[in-house]
Amino acid sequence: MKVFRDVILLEEAIKKLKEFYKPKPKVEEVDLFNATGRVSAEDVYAISDVPPFDRATMDGYAVKAEDTFEADEENPVRLKVLGYISAGEWKDIEVTNGCAVEIATGAPMPKGSNAVVMVEYTKRIGDYVEIFKAVAPGENVMSAGSDVMQGELILRKGDIITHRDIGVLASCGISKVKVYKRPTVAIISTGNELVEVGKELEFGKIYDVNSYTLFSAVEENGGKALFLGIARDKEDEIERLIRRGLEIADIVITSGGTSAGVGDIVYRVLNKWKPGVIVHGIAVKPGKPAIIAICNGKPVFGLPGYPTSALIVFEVLVAPILRALAGIPKEENRIRAKIATKTFSAEGRREFLPVNIAKGSEGYMAYPVSGYYSGAITSLAFSDGFIEIPENVVMLEEGENVEVKLFSRLKPADLMIIGSHCIGVDIILRILNKIKPINTKVINIGSTGGILAIKRGEADIAGTHLLDESGVYNEPFIRKYRLRDVVLVKGYLREQGFIVKRGNPKRIKSFRDLLRKDVTFINRNKGSGTRILLDMNLKKLANDLGIDFDEVVKSIKGYEVEAKTHTSVAVSVLSGKADVGIGIKSVAIKYGLDFIPIRAEEYDFLIRKDRLNKESVKLFLNVLKSEEFSKELEKIGMKTYERTGELIEF
Amino acid sequence: MKVFRDVILLEEAIKKLKEFYKPKPKVEEVDLFNATGRVSAEDVYAISDVPPFDRATMDGYAVKAEDTFEADEENPVRLKVLGYISAGEWKDIEVTNGCAVEIATGAPMPKGSNAVVMVEYTKRIGDYVEIFKAVAPGENVMSAGSDVMQGELILRKGDIITHRDIGVLASCGISKVKVYKRPTVAIISTGNELVEVGKELEFGKIYDVNSYTLFSAVEENGGKALFLGIARDKEDEIERLIRRGLEIADIVITSGGTSAGVGDIVYRVLNKWKPGVIVHGIAVKPGKPAIIAICNGKPVFGLPGYPTSALIVFEVLVAPILRALAGIPKEENRIRAKIATKTFSAEGRREFLPVNIAKGSEGYMAYPVSGYYSGAITSLAFSDGFIEIPENVVMLEEGENVEVKLFSRLKPADLMIIGSHCIGVDIILRILNKIKPINTKVINIGSTGGILAIKRGEADIAGTHLLDESGVYNEPFIRKYRLRDVVLVKGYLREQGFIVKRGNPKRIKSFRDLLRKDVTFINRNKGSGTRILLDMNLKKLANDLGIDFDEVVKSIKGYEVEAKTHTSVAVSVLSGKADVGIGIKSVAIKYGLDFIPIRAEEYDFLIRKDRLNKESVKLFLNVLKSEEFSKELEKIGMKTYERTGELIEF
Repeated sequence: MKVFRDVILLEEAIKKLKEFYKPKPKVEEVDLFNATGRVSAEDVYAISDVPPFDRATMDGYAVKAEDTFEADEENPVRLKVLGYISAGEWKDIEVTNGCAVEIATGAPMPKGSNAVVMVEYTKRIGDYVEIFKAVAPGENVMSAGSDVMQGELILRKGDIITHRDIGVLASCGISKVKVYKRPTVAIISTGNELVEVGKELEFGKIYDVNSYTLFSAVEENGGKALFLGIARDKEDEIERLIRRGLEIADIVITSGGTSAGVGDIVYRVLNKWKPGVIVHGIAVKPGKPAIIAICNGKPVFGLPGYPTSALIVFEVLVAPILRALAGIPKEENRIRAKIATKTFSAEGRREFLPVNIAKGSEGYMAYPVSGYYSGAITSLAFSDGFIEIPENVVMLEEGENVEVKLFSRLKPADLMIIGSHCIGVDIILRILNKIKPINTKVINIGSTGGILAIKRGEADIAGTHLLDESGVYNEPFIRKYRLRDVVLVKGYLREQGFIVKRGNPKRIKSFRDLLRKDVTFINRNKGSGTRILLDMNLKKLANDLGIDFDEVVKSIKGYEVEAKTHTSVAVSVLSGKADVGIGIKSVAIKYGLDFIPIRAEEYDFLIRKDRLNKESVKLFLNVLKSEEFSKELEKIGMKTYERTGELIEF
Repeated sequence: MKVFRDVILLEEAIKKLKEFYKPKPKVEEVDLFNATGRVSAEDVYAISDVPPFDRATMDGYAVKAEDTFEADEENPVRLKVLGYISAGEWKDIEVTNGCAVEIATGAPMPKGSNAVVMVEYTKRIGDYVEIFKAVAPGENVMSAGSDVMQGELILRKGDIITHRDIGVLASCGISKVKVYKRPTVAIISTGNELVEVGKELEFGKIYDVNSYTLFSAVEENGGKALFLGIARDKEDEIERLIRRGLEIADIVITSGGTSAGVGDIVYRVLNKWKPGVIVHGIAVKPGKPAIIAICNGKPVFGLPGYPTSALIVFEVLVAPILRALAGIPKEENRIRAKIATKTFSAEGRREFLPVNIAKGSEGYMAYPVSGYYSGAITSLAFSDGFIEIPENVVMLEEGENVEVKLFSRLKPADLMIIGSHCIGVDIILRILNKIKPINTKVINIGSTGGILAIKRGEADIAGTHLLDESGVYNEPFIRKYRLRDVVLVKGYLREQGFIVKRGNPKRIKSFRDLLRKDVTFINRNKGSGTRILLDMNLKKLANDLGIDFDEVVKSIKGYEVEAKTHTSVAVSVLSGKADVGIGIKSVAIKYGLDFIPIRAEEYDFLIRKDRLNKESVKLFLNVLKSEEFSKELEKIGMKTYERTGELIEF
């Protein structure tokens, strides 16, 4: 097994990088037509007054205000008209007492005048004009510099330039502005298994994902990306592309070839420069194999090959440098949330955990992405953001406050399903999407989690299959958790039964067989519906046999061994660790095991009353009741029944 | 006076436009490297499974899981190694019972195998490998389609494409994506007075602002702008440019030439097409003269020439069409706020009123931009957004709820000053900005408004000059409004006095002169500091004369005539409407009037204690106490004194 040379903490890695490399933003000048969205690299001061002269704001007559003080509707003042000034025209006429100049909106005020009488309050008679209203000095005049004053600060270093800033710059005649140059980033993917998107895929190969995500992420962070191609896992190929990158770009990013197993080619290549590799291995999860090198004075980042790992390392390590170079202010796209489930984390490594966000009565709730795997692109692509779990934290309690770094603006899903996972739900959504593509978010958190999500208003629909000791599914739990204004829509039946080896070699038929000395059982975790089903039946059995429940339990070999999922029950039986377990039929089918039915589990849907009119919810319920769904469901060993679609109000 | 043909409501104008023109988004295909930030024009489904085959996620040995079930550290299972498969390689080896294939991370699983034993749990001995740990079926294998399943919906019509979407598209080999084409918009400015930015400005001309703001606003709204140039106010020039615009663009925008006075050239030109002008005059403020025409089936918008009017009409009329064509989802950048002051609006017109936003203990407060003028670019450029006041609302009460459309993300100012306006504050900020450019927002709302803004935590500093009947400035009001944890920093003195005509023809010397029959007074509004100063002195006078205060007031000609500002007092005196008023010296100086001092008003600064450590506040106070400020202040008839900078705690 390969050991990374010297795994260090993220902060140490960043510090080390800063020792060797200081981002120096470059500046370029652009004209106003190319300035939108760019970042100003200078404080800009107005170079002239706006307006540059006293300007008429109305059509009318420029006058000395004092000449009009006596004017009113009954007693107009008569002034001699000396001429006419239109907008954009300058005439050297001086207004003296008793005189006026006809003037258009926007025209410069003639010398001696200090107010404009609106044309509405005048009457022209040949060379004279009668004024019917007094004006004060300055009336209907926009004085020089009143909009923008020469020397005024009109744009600040670091401002993202908008159309309104451009308007102010234009108004005082500034045609060019200094902005930060977009840093150039060369992108290289490495790996024999990678094929460029668009080309044909031979068996055993996969499409290169990182080049595209990193290219796009560079652009989103204000950089200019240059894709140099895919290098085979060969030193000379990788070296050639890195050399090319160092020639044409400010920063080079490679992905792949850093992990154990594919050798250590990128590492070896980068050490051909001095100082070469300065960081190899960072205590983060995912992304541990990351490399930082300095070659020709430029930073080279060797990112892991797994898409999610590569993007997380990009986000925490590369993006801040790009943004610093591009002059983009630190974006604070973070929200505070509570974590929805108890969450364990890797000790000694900073963990970046993708989460989905749902909003309810307790604010934002962060649901960790279930089955999160850094080799999958969808782990990240279909989540809302991620949380950071410090190195020294190994567990987050349910409800603990966390800070979520969002990928983009949160947009509510058309349909939010939170609860127990079932393949049946996946089938409903597949059919629904054929009818109308809707933006659905499914968060698998178990039945109880779903009920709580409905209570807090985070979910539209929760799938639940909780069995009460009374033998009734779901309904008792809605009362127990005191939910109001909700409905329970009866769903479908999932058969629970004994999962045994193919051919049922131990001839297991009933719960009584579990007490046999030659039978090893595999149990489910406490609180699961399956466990409740078991214990209920064992109590009945104890009663029938006239012995204590505890006695019954003690007689079962393996009662204390708990599997957490249907699948792990099946795997235990398959591998011979156990002879029998209890689970749903579809899992037995999947693993080619035999199945002896016990009873049908009722998988139902809990919905808030106020969401029943939502289009996506209506569509969901229509599909639930459809023929097509019924047929599809049967293929995986589940079935709809006469109660499917029945609505119970709470 | 020109009357607009047929002024109609905004909604009617939009309806009329829709009758003649339906925006039809165009679609183009781009490759993934050009897709970032574009809007998807189609629902995209995965065309293949990701991964396309069962893939090893660890370095180790591909096995049949069942062969390992018996293995543990003491009892390794020995398997024959049939070969080695590296990532990207496909070998047609079949794993049968008792055999294994060495495999690298990412490599395809060989036939017959269903799990990978990590290399850490193996020992290679020649052609054999010893397995020290059992694996379950599927362990360390990423199964085909588990990341993305063929047929899965991976991108939705209308989604703005991010690097994460691009990753999912790439992963299943989709190299191109259909996106909405950016609509092209031709931009024309009209007006004899306009000069292109960057060229020299003759006297009487101004720089063209609208071409630049509209160009940028088009780009911000997903369009591609084409600037065609400035047309003189001549029919043939305007027609030539509009024809060119109709040839090359989807939409044409002109600005200027629509208002009364500059003739009606744009209107006449647009009627050369059929149907030509369909809307002329919209009941909005600002922007009433707006024109909508249909020429060659394309919409032409004739926007007013005033920069703020043009932008508001663009925002409410043109931007929604551009966004529809560009497929950009409706952006909801709105916040709820309370309006800070009683606000009057134009009846019968929808008013769009620029506001500044301050945040405090009562949430967002919207302060209307004071002295708002649609001919000024800064009215809009330096505000945070605008509110919409319906046609039938003529007044908003202080504290009423309003919805603010923000121009961009709200960013807090480094220094927020809310209160009474004083030129002295402008001088402080001018000096401060030379020391260090900071992002300052000044909202002029009067002394009382400033005190309330401090109480609610909206302002860092409030300028105040309120006189109590006790004759003490400011301090009594801090107690009256129950402010805590604030300090009053003594500012400077503004001399209040009688403002009289040049030469003081009525020989006014004291308050007793106001009672003379030959003297006409102009009063200030109730609640103003100046009014309190007057009444205090009149009460003293009444006392001295042994008559009632009411009697004194009755004797003053003009006591009931209230001016709202210092300036309008000065203008009343200047125009002869009054012989005397009370105001500050700087206004008398400005209007060339004489000034007889009464007493010095104390203009002070109220600051929350928790803001005293803020760098911008410290700098402000340093400048207040500086020599430079003292000198500048004296030039405008105000002065610092021994108490300047003194700090009184509350």
